[in-house]
Amino acid sequence: LTTTPRFGVNYTPSKDWMFQWMAIDPAVVRADFEAIAALGVDHVRVFPLWPVLQPNRTLIRQRALDDIALVADLAAEHGLDISVDVIQGHMSGFDFVPAWLVNWHDGNMFTDRPAIDAQAALVSAVYDAVRDKPNFLGLTLGNELNQFQRPNPAAMPAKRDEVTHWLTSLLGAPRDRDPRHVVTHSENDHLWYRDEHPFVPVHAARQGDMTTVHSWIFNGTAATYGALSPQSVRHAEWMIELSKAFATDPRRQVWLQEVGAPSMNLAESEMPEFCARTIEAALTTDDLYAVTWWCSHDVTRELGDYKDLEYSLGLLDTENNVKPLGRRFAEVVAEARAAGARPAGSGRATAVVVDVDADDLPLSRASLGPGGAVFERWHALREDGVEVAVVTSAAAADPAALAARGIRELVRVDAV
Amino acid sequence: LTTTPRFGVNYTPSKDWMFQWMAIDPAVVRADFEAIAALGVDHVRVFPLWPVLQPNRTLIRQRALDDIALVADLAAEHGLDISVDVIQGHMSGFDFVPAWLVNWHDGNMFTDRPAIDAQAALVSAVYDAVRDKPNFLGLTLGNELNQFQRPNPAAMPAKRDEVTHWLTSLLGAPRDRDPRHVVTHSENDHLWYRDEHPFVPVHAARQGDMTTVHSWIFNGTAATYGALSPQSVRHAEWMIELSKAFATDPRRQVWLQEVGAPSMNLAESEMPEFCARTIEAALTTDDLYAVTWWCSHDVTRELGDYKDLEYSLGLLDTENNVKPLGRRFAEVVAEARAAGARPAGSGRATAVVVDVDADDLPLSRASLGPGGAVFERWHALREDGVEVAVVTSAAAADPAALAARGIRELVRVDAV
Repeated sequence: LTTTPRFGVNYTPSKDWMFQWMAIDPAVVRADFEAIAALGVDHVRVFPLWPVLQPNRTLIRQRALDDIALVADLAAEHGLDISVDVIQGHMSGFDFVPAWLVNWHDGNMFTDRPAIDAQAALVSAVYDAVRDKPNFLGLTLGNELNQFQRPNPAAMPAKRDEVTHWLTSLLGAPRDRDPRHVVTHSENDHLWYRDEHPFVPVHAARQGDMTTVHSWIFNGTAATYGALSPQSVRHAEWMIELSKAFATDPRRQVWLQEVGAPSMNLAESEMPEFCARTIEAALTTDDLYAVTWWCSHDVTRELGDYKDLEYSLGLLDTENNVKPLGRRFAEVVAEARAAGARPAGSGRATAVVVDVDADDLPLSRASLGPGGAVFERWHALREDGVEVAVVTSAAAADPAALAARGIRELVRVDAV
Repeated sequence: LTTTPRFGVNYTPSKDWMFQWMAIDPAVVRADFEAIAALGVDHVRVFPLWPVLQPNRTLIRQRALDDIALVADLAAEHGLDISVDVIQGHMSGFDFVPAWLVNWHDGNMFTDRPAIDAQAALVSAVYDAVRDKPNFLGLTLGNELNQFQRPNPAAMPAKRDEVTHWLTSLLGAPRDRDPRHVVTHSENDHLWYRDEHPFVPVHAARQGDMTTVHSWIFNGTAATYGALSPQSVRHAEWMIELSKAFATDPRRQVWLQEVGAPSMNLAESEMPEFCARTIEAALTTDDLYAVTWWCSHDVTRELGDYKDLEYSLGLLDTENNVKPLGRRFAEVVAEARAAGARPAGSGRATAVVVDVDADDLPLSRASLGPGGAVFERWHALREDGVEVAVVTSAAAADPAALAARGIRELVRVDAV
C-alpha cells in the first residue's frame, strides 16, 4: 500500500510576513495556526530570516532560536507538526543576506570556508533548538538557496563540486540526530531546467534524506500551454517523476514542498480547480512524503514591492478568513485522507529516457522544462493515459535498475 | 563667554554590539549606561539598525520604535541625554541595507523617490517615538551615510544636487518639531578630502541645525605625521575650523560627533595621551556643541570580521571596566567641566584660504586632507602658536564676511 502523504502549508505569517520572525508575537501566530489547522493539514513549513538568526558570522542569537522553539510549541497547540527552513536567504523575491557577506565584506556563502562553517553551526544550532519537540519533523537547509546563483544580480557563483561540498557540510551539521527527523535541501527549478546551473539533479535526488520539489507554473508552463492545461496541472507530478530518475534508491521519498497558484497565470476563480487537479495528479505518484501548499496567508497590500502574485497566493487572507482556494484545498485534503492508503502503483512501466553524461548530468536540461522535447513527450504520453515514469540513459542501459523500478518500456526522445 | 561643550559617547552596546537593537535587553543597556554615566558624560549617541526599524519599504516596526523609547528612558535613569541616529546604514565597516534595496530590488537610497519617501517616513516616526522624552537631544539622519557612495563596492551613486535633495527631504521630515531638538546629518571625511565625492562641504556646513565632524586619524594623518604628532592630535580641531569656512552663519555650532583612538596607529599606552591632547585642542574652538567620543565599549572578540581597531576603541571593556583610555577621557571631561566657561576666543584673526568655485566647492579637496598644502599650512601656523581659522576664497574677497568672523589676516596657499 502507498500511504496517504502528509498535507501542510508553507507558513507566511498574516501580520508582517516573514518579518514576524524578528520578534514572534504569540497571539498572531496562534491565531494563524488555528486557522491553518482548520484546513485539515498536519504540518507547517516555517522560515526564520537568516540575518535575524545570525547577524554576525559568529553570533547566533539565542532569542531567535527561542522564537523558533516557541513557534514549534504554538504549532503543537493546534496539532500541527513543524518543519524549519534554516537559511532565508531567499524568500518571495527578496534576498536576506547578513551584513557579514555583503559590500565591504563581500563573500560567497557556498565557497568561503568560514561562511560554510558558520552556516553549518547555524544548522546545528537550529536543530538543537527544536530537536526534542515531539512535533518537530525536520530541517530544510533553506528556501531555494540556489537562487543565489545566476541570474541573481548579486550571485555568489559556485561550481557543481563546490555546491556538493556546501550541501554535504550543511546536511551533516546536526549532531545527535534523531533518525525520525528529515533533513533536506531545496531548490527552484533552475536545478532541473537550466543548463549551466551548478545545482544539478543528482544534488536534489541524492543529497539529504529525501528529494524536495518546488513546482511553479510561472516558469513558462502556464504561458506555453495554459494555466489549466494538462501540462500545468501535471507540472508537479512531472517534477516528482523527473526527480525519481536521478535517485539511487528507487523508493526514495519525494516531498512536493512548494506548489501554488500564481495570479499572473490564473484568475482567482481558476485557482481552486488548479489546486485540486494539481494535487490529484501528484497523488498518482508513489513514495510521496508530503504536499505542502504555498502558502498559508496572502501578503498584506500594506507591504510594498512584492511581485503581484505574492499578495494572493494564500489559502487564507490576512484576517484568517478561508479563501475559495483554501476551501478547495481543504476539500481535496479531506478527500485524500478519506480515501486512505491506496494500492501501491503497479509501477510506472513506461519511462521516458533523459540522456545523461557519465556524471548523470542531463545533456540538455532545457529539454526537461516547458517547451522541451522530453517534457512534451512525457506529458503527451501522460495525457494518453499512460502512467509514465522517467529514467536516465544510464539507468536505461542497466536492466537491474529498470527492474528495480518495474520499468518495462522505454521511450527515447530524439535529440533536438 | 564660550560655554563648555557637552561631552558624550557613541554607544556600542557591550553585548551583541549593534545587534542589541534587534531586541533590547534592558539589563544590558542599564548596566552599560551606569558605567557610561560614571565617566562623567552627559549624553549618548545611539544607532538602531535600519533593517530592524524598516525591513520593508512600507513597514516601520513599532517594536523597534518602542525599543528606542525604552533606551531613552534607560538613559534618563542615569542622567544621560540621548541623540538618535536614524539610518544605519553604515557602521564600523559593516553595511546594513534592507532587502527592499538590494539584489532583485536593487535601488538607490539617495535618488529613488519611493526610497527617499520611506526614509523620510522613518525619520519622522523615530522623531515621534522620542519627541516627548525630556532627555531627547535630537536626531542625526544616520551614521556616515555618504559611505554608500564610491568606493563602496555596492555604492548607490548620487550627484551633488541629488544629495542636497535627499538631505533636505530627510532633515525636513520631523513634524511638530520642538525647537530645542537638534536635527543633523553626518559624513566621514570623504566629504572634506575627496574630490569627486558628491557630498560636499556646504552640505555639512549649511544643512541641518549644526555641523557635525567625524575625525579619524587613520585617514593618512597618523601614517604621514605620526599618531601623536601635532597634525594628529589637532586633526579634530582642524576639521572643526575647516567646517566653519563653509558655514553661512559665523556662529553656527559644530559637533565633534566622532573621534577615537585607532589601534592601527596608536599603541594602547598612547591612547590616553591622544585622547587628552585631541580634546584639549578641540576645546580651543568656539561654538563647539559637544565632543562625543567613539566609543563607549570595545567590540567583543567573540564577534567576527571587524577590522582590528574596532575591538579596542572603547572607553570601557565589554565587562564595563574602565580602560586607561576611559580614565583619561573622564579626567579630561572633569577638568573641562571644572574650568567652566572660558572667554570667547578673541576670534581667530588669521585664516588660511581655501580656493573655491562659484558654488563654494573647494577647487582641490585633496589639498585639505593629510599631505595637502592647505592642511599642512594650517597645521604649521597652528604649531607656531597662531590660532588659525579657515576661510573660502569667496569669503576672503568679502570684507563683511571677514569682519563677521574677526578675521584680519589671510594666508594664501600656492596652488599645487
